[in-house]
Amino acid sequence: MSIQDAIAEITLILGQRLTTSKSDLDLHGRSETYFAACPPDAIAYPDSTDEVSQIVKICAAHNCPVIGWGTGTSLEGQSLAVHGGICVDFSRMNRIIAVHHADMDAIVQPGVTREALNLDLRATGLFFPVDPGANASLGGMASTRASGTTAVRYGTMRGNVIGLTVVLASGEIIHTGTRARKSSAGYDLTSLFVGAEGTLGLICELTLRLHGQPESTTAAICAFDTIDAAVACVIDTIQIGIPMARIEFVDAATVAAVNAYSGSDMSERPHLMVEFHGSETAVAEQAENFGEIVTDHEGHGFEWAANSEDRTALWAMRHSAYWAILAARPGTTALVTDICVPISRLADAVNAVRADLADAGVAGPILGHVGDGNFHSILLFDPDNAQELETVKDLSNRMVERALEMGGTVSGEHGIGLGKLGYMEREHGGAWAVMGALKTALDPQNIMNPGKLVPPGN
Amino acid sequence: MSIQDAIAEITLILGQRLTTSKSDLDLHGRSETYFAACPPDAIAYPDSTDEVSQIVKICAAHNCPVIGWGTGTSLEGQSLAVHGGICVDFSRMNRIIAVHHADMDAIVQPGVTREALNLDLRATGLFFPVDPGANASLGGMASTRASGTTAVRYGTMRGNVIGLTVVLASGEIIHTGTRARKSSAGYDLTSLFVGAEGTLGLICELTLRLHGQPESTTAAICAFDTIDAAVACVIDTIQIGIPMARIEFVDAATVAAVNAYSGSDMSERPHLMVEFHGSETAVAEQAENFGEIVTDHEGHGFEWAANSEDRTALWAMRHSAYWAILAARPGTTALVTDICVPISRLADAVNAVRADLADAGVAGPILGHVGDGNFHSILLFDPDNAQELETVKDLSNRMVERALEMGGTVSGEHGIGLGKLGYMEREHGGAWAVMGALKTALDPQNIMNPGKLVPPGN
Repeated sequence: MSIQDAIAEITLILGQRLTTSKSDLDLHGRSETYFAACPPDAIAYPDSTDEVSQIVKICAAHNCPVIGWGTGTSLEGQSLAVHGGICVDFSRMNRIIAVHHADMDAIVQPGVTREALNLDLRATGLFFPVDPGANASLGGMASTRASGTTAVRYGTMRGNVIGLTVVLASGEIIHTGTRARKSSAGYDLTSLFVGAEGTLGLICELTLRLHGQPESTTAAICAFDTIDAAVACVIDTIQIGIPMARIEFVDAATVAAVNAYSGSDMSERPHLMVEFHGSETAVAEQAENFGEIVTDHEGHGFEWAANSEDRTALWAMRHSAYWAILAARPGTTALVTDICVPISRLADAVNAVRADLADAGVAGPILGHVGDGNFHSILLFDPDNAQELETVKDLSNRMVERALEMGGTVSGEHGIGLGKLGYMEREHGGAWAVMGALKTALDPQNIMNPGKLVPPGN
Repeated sequence: MSIQDAIAEITLILGQRLTTSKSDLDLHGRSETYFAACPPDAIAYPDSTDEVSQIVKICAAHNCPVIGWGTGTSLEGQSLAVHGGICVDFSRMNRIIAVHHADMDAIVQPGVTREALNLDLRATGLFFPVDPGANASLGGMASTRASGTTAVRYGTMRGNVIGLTVVLASGEIIHTGTRARKSSAGYDLTSLFVGAEGTLGLICELTLRLHGQPESTTAAICAFDTIDAAVACVIDTIQIGIPMARIEFVDAATVAAVNAYSGSDMSERPHLMVEFHGSETAVAEQAENFGEIVTDHEGHGFEWAANSEDRTALWAMRHSAYWAILAARPGTTALVTDICVPISRLADAVNAVRADLADAGVAGPILGHVGDGNFHSILLFDPDNAQELETVKDLSNRMVERALEMGGTVSGEHGIGLGKLGYMEREHGGAWAVMGALKTALDPQNIMNPGKLVPPGN
């Protein structure tokens, strides 16, 4: 079998760093959500770009699928080996190669996690802002074009990756971008590989844009009587130009779950959680202006978290919401939706989801990055109950269809993987075939994460 | 002849909006700089995306080159019809289709110029920030991935185009992106067409990100004794996190030219010109902090331009610098260089250019968008003197080579066109062949702006 031949040849290079142990295969065959396990045939742990190149060359010679693996925290089954093959686990390629202070960039290997990078940067006055919640690997975050709570201010991985080293399907190593802040020298290959979910090549090195740690930070939380009021407050805040660093929405059901999980006693209404970054004066002014907008929309229960401990507690609460929601109904798992709509349609979209949930009798607390128009509903279901899975899939389907009708996207930040593949044609129309043509041009044998992202047959 | 057949068929659709008049061919055969005239065989003036699609289908059937044309203000000969063919002039497709206030986006046809868009937006509280100086068309700005003075704050066309309608080489019309602020749904085709210089398709509609007009704006100019001091001041300003809206550098030679041209009496030293956007408090604080950094670097002659008239005068001076420099030696033309380097290398790069200029005895005033590490030298030469052209080309070549050695790019914002094609392999290495493969995948007949951007033969 060709995959077995590939495994044998790769073993000659990696020795014990190529494994077929059942426990490791199982670990790399699982995803964070509801997809059926789908283990690869072997896992490779390369130490260098050159080793990745050799692995891919061998796979190309044997027509063997190659799937990248960061921390396994993707939410749409991106790293599931649906056609078997070699899983390339980047955990050993976790070196911060360089930090350029004056240029405010860093060069890292793909296995570096965002927390590891920020820990390393702590004393430099710089930080890497993209924060999807999970302590994901930077290679994985680039591959799924991740974002999170800070995208409203600092952008997504699209804007924060300025260059890449990529191993192509042939095993060839290429470099995209330079260390210059901008360039108009040809096709933007960096942007093409960011979000490609490993279907065009494996990211082996990233040049990332860093930002200055803010002189001052303050955060706040406040409640609203309706979702419409909370969203109107967000729109006004953006329009008036207050540069929020984060602006997060949680609905009443999320608050209830968090209260139960953390023992907090927030009022069970829709809330906004915000953070401001800047000079002391700027942050104070932003906070004051925001407070006025909140009052205009009859927000209440305003609480500031100016000191670092209160702020950590506030964002820990936000980041624990997923686990709090899961804990609200023990034994369940979740389908996490991820639509993003023009912000003018956000209240409509959230309200429609709530109506759907009520009709279906499903618990689906809603939270999201409302400054971007991006929100998630955590649809709980019993994994042993096929009927429940069908019901939540149907709900998710309706949300996605509605997002498209509203001019939005089927995936704000989680990517496509297996969960959203069925919507690609609906969102992109003829442009999906263009993606297929690009895939065929760069990976004619279809060995790079096959079965993902592009039309079947490409 | 196949091009003549294409012209005949397109005439059936466009009537007098397809022209072969000599004066019009001449006009569309010229560029802003030193390239030899290169007229197309005909110029088409479509009114709609559908007409563009029909034109391209006919061209595909006859293997006839198709070259897009905005305002003809590109600086590297991007729109020169080096293989003849049909020039598609977008000047009639100049409609602002929609402005979505709450969503802060606009949908425009490619022939809308940036000034026309901003005039239309004047009363909305919104604006489109990308400002390359020339009143270029937005389609052209997207195609060359333009930027300019405000990129340091608001980004380039890369970050400000969120979706496109494109006519492919087959004539097929596709849509990329949605109106959502972010997406992780598949390959970032928008970014692929932005900067592709019309080699992958023709941009027929753009969804642009708008920004809030700042509540308050202030600008200032100050002088430094050395280039190193001016650049060190820029680096400190960025590191400390002062969010400049513009930060421009002009060298002593540029100041001298401007003085002679405008009758001003600025001290003939390196200068920085800055602008701050924000609330009144924020702008005042930013200006104060910037003032302190200037003092640290022994800057002097600080002048504020807080009112709108002074500001306009200041930026008019900056934007007229090119003409002032040309006027300094009547009868000359210019080769405008456009390198971009990591900002830590900026002073080295500028000083090296000045040394080269002195050695060669060539006037090449330097100015640039120093917040991005991007600068231009305006190399003056007599267009009738082949030796002078060779000398300035040689100087330009040395700058480009040095930019690459410093980890920079051969083009910060002017694109590749004819002027930089020879450097693509040197900058991109194996990635240039990847660009060629993408081109072949989307334009197998090579009819879209042939002879540009990708390796010959693709």
